[in-house]
Amino acid sequence: MSNSQMVELTVVEPDAQAAESVVPCCPPITAGELSVADAEKMAAMFKALSDPVRLRLFSKVASHAGGEACVCDISDVGVSQPTVSHHLKKLKDAGLLTSERRGTWVYYSVAPSVVAAMSAMLDLRG
Amino acid sequence: MSNSQMVELTVVEPDAQAAESVVPCCPPITAGELSVADAEKMAAMFKALSDPVRLRLFSKVASHAGGEACVCDISDVGVSQPTVSHHLKKLKDAGLLTSERRGTWVYYSVAPSVVAAMSAMLDLRG
Repeated sequence: MSNSQMVELTVVEPDAQAAESVVPCCPPITAGELSVADAEKMAAMFKALSDPVRLRLFSKVASHAGGEACVCDISDVGVSQPTVSHHLKKLKDAGLLTSERRGTWVYYSVAPSVVAAMSAMLDLRG
Repeated sequence: MSNSQMVELTVVEPDAQAAESVVPCCPPITAGELSVADAEKMAAMFKALSDPVRLRLFSKVASHAGGEACVCDISDVGVSQPTVSHHLKKLKDAGLLTSERRGTWVYYSVAPSVVAAMSAMLDLRG
């Protein structure tokens, strides 16, 4: 991947930050057709969970004692610590995790409203 | 897309058929760490929803009258009909849609157990 492509990825961040602070859309998929804007927002969230290692890390944070975890807690997934950090940052950029730096480590927790919105969107019972 | 690539996509089908007939894993992500095998299975499903056009098409099928739709019903998403068919096939291969050919058209409906499993996995209330 060229440097210019790396820069392109970074440009996406402001939107991702916005996703963290606002409860995202949407009504259940059975309720009607998603708008273009809502589909783009939700597709980015599903994309964050579309990598097996990232999904495992997400489950490790979500199920960790106290509801939060740092890289130091969850690095046993068969990839390097920088790769773990990279995946956690992607989950944060997509709005699925929030983070807080304390001392040396950044602690991650699940963003409940965002994950609940994804779950509700796929809930066919309603 | 070349013919050889089309053939490659077809090879994926046996696994996809299995995904359709079996309710997939998993417990809520807060319940514990996903296994490698479960993470791979679920990541593939989330990947199917990680494209905005595919997600819109999925919502169109899910919300269509009678709970099913063919390409002829849902082609107004700004891409060509072959592209719509390609996206619907990807959703089917991932186990999120089932299909039935009737006459000229293939009709797609949501695979309720698969989508419910994705929703349940992201349900933080339990």
